[in-house]
Amino acid sequence: PLQILDDGGDLTHWIYKKYPNMFKKIKGIVEESVTGVHRLYQLSKAGKLCVPAMNVNDSVTKQKFDNLYCCRESILDGLKRTTDMMFGGKQVVVCGYGEVRGSIFPLFPPFPTGNSIMDGFRLVKLNEVIRQVDIVITCTGNKNVVTREHLDRMKNSCIVCNMGHSNTEIDVASLRTPELTWERVRSQVDHVIWPDGKRIVLLAEGRLLNLSCSTVPTFVLSITATTQALALIELYNAPEGRYKQDVYLLPKKMDEYVASLHLPTFDAHLTELTDEQAKYLGLNKNGPFKPNYYRC
Amino acid sequence: PLQILDDGGDLTHWIYKKYPNMFKKIKGIVEESVTGVHRLYQLSKAGKLCVPAMNVNDSVTKQKFDNLYCCRESILDGLKRTTDMMFGGKQVVVCGYGEVRGSIFPLFPPFPTGNSIMDGFRLVKLNEVIRQVDIVITCTGNKNVVTREHLDRMKNSCIVCNMGHSNTEIDVASLRTPELTWERVRSQVDHVIWPDGKRIVLLAEGRLLNLSCSTVPTFVLSITATTQALALIELYNAPEGRYKQDVYLLPKKMDEYVASLHLPTFDAHLTELTDEQAKYLGLNKNGPFKPNYYRC
Amino acid sequence: PLQILDDGGDLTHWIYKKYPNMFKKIKGIVEESVTGVHRLYQLSKAGKLCVPAMNVNDSVTKQKFDNLYCCRESILDGLKRTTDMMFGGKQVVVCGYGEVRGSIFPLFPPFPTGNSIMDGFRLVKLNEVIRQVDIVITCTGNKNVVTREHLDRMKNSCIVCNMGHSNTEIDVASLRTPELTWERVRSQVDHVIWPDGKRIVLLAEGRLLNLSCSTVPTFVLSITATTQALALIELYNAPEGRYKQDVYLLPKKMDEYVASLHLPTFDAHLTELTDEQAKYLGLNKNGPFKPNYYRC
Amino acid sequence: PLQILDDGGDLTHWIYKKYPNMFKKIKGIVEESVTGVHRLYQLSKAGKLCVPAMNVNDSVTKQKFDNLYCCRESILDGLKRTTDMMFGGKQVVVCGYGEVRGSIFPLFPPFPTGNSIMDGFRLVKLNEVIRQVDIVITCTGNKNVVTREHLDRMKNSCIVCNMGHSNTEIDVASLRTPELTWERVRSQVDHVIWPDGKRIVLLAEGRLLNLSCSTVPTFVLSITATTQALALIELYNAPEGRYKQDVYLLPKKMDEYVASLHLPTFDAHLTELTDEQAKYLGLNKNGPFKPNYYRC
Repeated sequence: PLQILDDGGDLTHWIYKKYPNMFKKIKGIVEESVTGVHRLYQLSKAGKLCVPAMNVNDSVTKQKFDNLYCCRESILDGLKRTTDMMFGGKQVVVCGYGEVRGSIFPLFPPFPTGNSIMDGFRLVKLNEVIRQVDIVITCTGNKNVVTREHLDRMKNSCIVCNMGHSNTEIDVASLRTPELTWERVRSQVDHVIWPDGKRIVLLAEGRLLNLSCSTVPTFVLSITATTQALALIELYNAPEGRYKQDVYLLPKKMDEYVASLHLPTFDAHLTELTDEQAKYLGLNKNGPFKPNYYRC
Repeated sequence: PLQILDDGGDLTHWIYKKYPNMFKKIKGIVEESVTGVHRLYQLSKAGKLCVPAMNVNDSVTKQKFDNLYCCRESILDGLKRTTDMMFGGKQVVVCGYGEVRGSIFPLFPPFPTGNSIMDGFRLVKLNEVIRQVDIVITCTGNKNVVTREHLDRMKNSCIVCNMGHSNTEIDVASLRTPELTWERVRSQVDHVIWPDGKRIVLLAEGRLLNLSCSTVPTFVLSITATTQALALIELYNAPEGRYKQDVYLLPKKMDEYVASLHLPTFDAHLTELTDEQAKYLGLNKNGPFKPNYYRC
Repeated sequence: PLQILDDGGDLTHWIYKKYPNMFKKIKGIVEESVTGVHRLYQLSKAGKLCVPAMNVNDSVTKQKFDNLYCCRESILDGLKRTTDMMFGGKQVVVCGYGEVRGSIFPLFPPFPTGNSIMDGFRLVKLNEVIRQVDIVITCTGNKNVVTREHLDRMKNSCIVCNMGHSNTEIDVASLRTPELTWERVRSQVDHVIWPDGKRIVLLAEGRLLNLSCSTVPTFVLSITATTQALALIELYNAPEGRYKQDVYLLPKKMDEYVASLHLPTFDAHLTELTDEQAKYLGLNKNGPFKPNYYRC
Repeated sequence: PLQILDDGGDLTHWIYKKYPNMFKKIKGIVEESVTGVHRLYQLSKAGKLCVPAMNVNDSVTKQKFDNLYCCRESILDGLKRTTDMMFGGKQVVVCGYGEVRGSIFPLFPPFPTGNSIMDGFRLVKLNEVIRQVDIVITCTGNKNVVTREHLDRMKNSCIVCNMGHSNTEIDVASLRTPELTWERVRSQVDHVIWPDGKRIVLLAEGRLLNLSCSTVPTFVLSITATTQALALIELYNAPEGRYKQDVYLLPKKMDEYVASLHLPTFDAHLTELTDEQAKYLGLNKNGPFKPNYYRC
């Protein structure tokens, strides 16, 4: 192999373990996932990263589509497909207020700027509302956000699901006790039944709702795959010395190129800078338009 | 003086010019505005900054309230107070798609991720829609976004205003020609009249609509003033060596403190991390909860 | 006079009292307001209406623009102009859930279909939330919806205003007692101060916020005036016998004509029925498209 | 049988044809659907209705939930389940602007008040936008709203579906011609392929998307069934003479009762009128709160 295209870091890890010599030929690693990126940064910190790596998880275009736009549709879709419920009039508590994502990044607690409040939501403690809500959604990146104590106090037919980090947010293990009965009513849908007959509806056993119970639109796949391909090309073609044994973000110009390739789908038209405007802003007319640290 | 609290950098500049010796006693500069911050970074780059400076413009709490939340209310308010128009059914073109702000930061063109599209807007060239729109709002941070050519093609009674950077975005100078008649119909409202009788409604002569025609709520002033006060205290009390002759962001912990002081107004309640959760995230239970580079 | 164009019914009443003989020449009455219409229906019921009358208050086009669309903009505008407040994060209770209007029609309580709930609001008793809210808005058409007891329990700086029926909804009289101090802070804005220092902010002394503290856009005036003019023409030109001594709605076809005259403002284009489609629906291709009883 | 509970009128029609003598014992008919109600009114007009009939289709509570609230969720759900598409950034044209419903009532053209415009939509002719849109949804109650000519001009992969009246709105028959190829890609999803390779995505062969490709939540079924049950009881228990051989609406009081039975699900609390308020409005404290002609 001349390059590694990884999602999660397992392949990278396996080559490190079994075939370290391969890294003599490998020109670089492109990593797609939060977890994999985390592992690469740890390798780099420990001085053990022996080729350049590109973190495409944090490309702006990929982030926005894979995380923000895709999640915000699939959460509703996942709920509908599994439960056929009516959303109207339901009281929902969402734990976490970042870009909803399967992410280890600390979205919880929300940065206390009161963003959620200004967007029209109430900012409450889960303890104080747990008895009244119809749906609980976790997306914090943290663990044990919904505990057995919370689950004990939920009302009958409350729906519980996770859009956050792997399967740690809801303490599902705490529900596997003799006094509770599990009833699988449909694929990905369990009723957990208390001795008094109360049922809660647990989706995907606490795993990610978007991945387990919804779909990823082809448009999002196209953006992700294009970003990965460009990263592979960049690492392969880069002149000696441009990338060292470290983790890099995709150059903004390529990030912008991925976006521009997908704009025609929307019949969208970008305005070009005039020479005078480009000079005023200190930018090249052809981009990149944003500094490399730009995140959203 | 022991410290400088500046907005725009003029005071700082004046002391540099006239009383450079004062900097022997001055412990630091706190700067509030985009322009002032820009000038500080230039001083720093040139190696001429002789005391520590704190950029409070980029504090998360201040940014969100002063720029995002305050602007999004005052743009509608400014339009209503000046024109008494009905918004319903109007076609509006907004030039720029960042956090609407009086900012030199290049919001224009928008980063081509198609954010505006995903939020339900059409992404068009101003040229192509200028004949049909009822309202034009600029917020790009750029210059000459609305040119005389655009103004010539607008339909009768089109409203033109600016929420972006100083008064550069609309080429108002191009309207001061003999064939056009200006008629002041009300404070901050001019009709510019073409020879054929067409009128456009220019607000605040192209200056910032939010500052000229609306108000800043006391809540936002409180957040800004608190941020400034904490920055002054931090610079004053900091142990020798913590800050060098450079520009700094307010430490995240203080930023979060400003936010937490304002939450009770909203009857908002933050959930505390458990010990286990804090450990899992690698955070201190009392914050800061976000890395120092966190911007939104 | 050959016709009466009235708003409130006072002119009609005065002619009845003083110059009843005039009705020999008068061909009809056009009445604009809820109250005036109410009085006409009472005259008709009592067999005392001696000419045809047209109720233009209930024309669909007039209703939608004058009541629904105009009110929904002027409530926010009225609050901004009087208080300069920030809306973000505020908790608001609205009493009544009809088309917000200065109307004697019983909007309160809302028809218990739970419409408000399905639109995402909570349906609560005023008693139970009065301590927490930042703004109270009445639009029920009823009286004493906000009582002294409610006012006593509001929190400091709560804003109270009325968008409903005349000035009956808030019991303002109950606030004119010796232990409370009134302080006029601005036109249309009173602080009412409790002995313990608590202030509530009363707008327009409980009269209609939209009329007292905001404006009526010219577009809405145009719709209302056009409707009135068409009603006058219809009554004047109607062949003998079309209208008896009763109260009539404006014929749907004219109502639709008013609408069609105002559509070009919005660059709106209506699709015409094909012959086949008109036949299928049992309609004339040129309208009216809605039955006469159609209200929204 | 003592009563008929019908949906569509076929049972009623069959008894009329085959067992007319049964009507001697039958105390009444309760009819649920638009079509069935239409047939009952025709019978009544022709003087052939021989027992009282109750039109529960037009009960306010049933209407709102079965038509408005249920449809507005199932249209998105139906699109997601059939196509896995991403909604973000798509251009959609909706033909018709009433309460989306499978209804013979003329929703098309919309009453030209410009309601759609004021709600932020553009009002356009289908001809003029058909080349650009990504999704076409019909809900007019009319026939041949989408013609072969429109279908010929749609762009590749345009999605076409119907939420309106039976299967008349899209001229599906016009697509069954030799030069077009049909490919069933999934249950309820057909690709219709033009000679040049263009595909349009036709859902449910033009039948109702909500019924064919989504589900009816149990909450909505409960409201409909409760309304039907109360109508049956009312007809059965009504004293001699209350109902003649005609079509009736369910008494408002019962309509309100159905609503009140379902409110606790939402933790909703209605405010009771005081004696003074009830008198002021001329209402009974226990309802009905709306006049019998009240529709929304």
